[in-house]
Amino acid sequence: MPKLDLSQVPVKTGSIYPEPYASMVKGRSSLRLGDAGGLTQFGVNLVMLEPGAMSSLRHWHMAEDEFVMVTEGECVMVQDGGETVMRPGDCAAFPAGSTDGHHFLNRTEKVAKFLVVGTKAKREVATYSDVDLKVEIEAGKARFTYKDGTDWTGPR
Amino acid sequence: MPKLDLSQVPVKTGSIYPEPYASMVKGRSSLRLGDAGGLTQFGVNLVMLEPGAMSSLRHWHMAEDEFVMVTEGECVMVQDGGETVMRPGDCAAFPAGSTDGHHFLNRTEKVAKFLVVGTKAKREVATYSDVDLKVEIEAGKARFTYKDGTDWTGPR
Repeated sequence: MPKLDLSQVPVKTGSIYPEPYASMVKGRSSLRLGDAGGLTQFGVNLVMLEPGAMSSLRHWHMAEDEFVMVTEGECVMVQDGGETVMRPGDCAAFPAGSTDGHHFLNRTEKVAKFLVVGTKAKREVATYSDVDLKVEIEAGKARFTYKDGTDWTGPR
Repeated sequence: MPKLDLSQVPVKTGSIYPEPYASMVKGRSSLRLGDAGGLTQFGVNLVMLEPGAMSSLRHWHMAEDEFVMVTEGECVMVQDGGETVMRPGDCAAFPAGSTDGHHFLNRTEKVAKFLVVGTKAKREVATYSDVDLKVEIEAGKARFTYKDGTDWTGPR
């Protein structure tokens, strides 16, 4: 596999979140670099955050390790313990099962970018720290529930 | 897990290669960022190449996906098809089982750095493209053989 031509990798926008959550991640887009390079064991995405955008709802993964390196601009990483400014070269790791949820916000006037790596587990549960929502993903299908496991039908 | 303090991550030097190959990767060092952050499913290393250094013998992995992003300076990526100059932000992906071996050379006068991600497979075989050598790694133990599978006892 030669050097990846990033200009040829489709820009992914949108979200699998149900509303009102999908609208909260407008301004986020990504390049699925690992997929573009034929990788199947972990995903590698270059995430781009427009000014004011957030990377995702704050969340943690049951089954999948995750790793982030900021590559451009400046992000704020939010966790249970508070906020941390992240600049190019700054890294953070989120071991599977660690319940300290995280996400990244761009509060600057310029685009911010980060590389994110995550294992592709056969079955994954992501739990959203600040809202009554979690998602089970298996065989490519996502099922959103409240944290008590019942089907999600709207904010609660 | 908060932002990783890279200044506190031990700098790994040396190589598991037998001589004369270990000497060929002098000038290479790395920070094991994934390990430092408690990750177990994939490794994330920040590799530093001094001027003149090479990242590894040219190789390919049987079981493990691998992904590289250059973060500083300039490297030459060498594959079966020839050489490609890689600069910060440039990426390459190496799917498990793809037999096109790769490594990275720093032919500049400045340090070059890249981030490399690789799955942590239970059993791995790496094959070295340009010499009669391969290595089987299982349960943390490495066994070097010739490509015909017999124990390696020196160059051939």
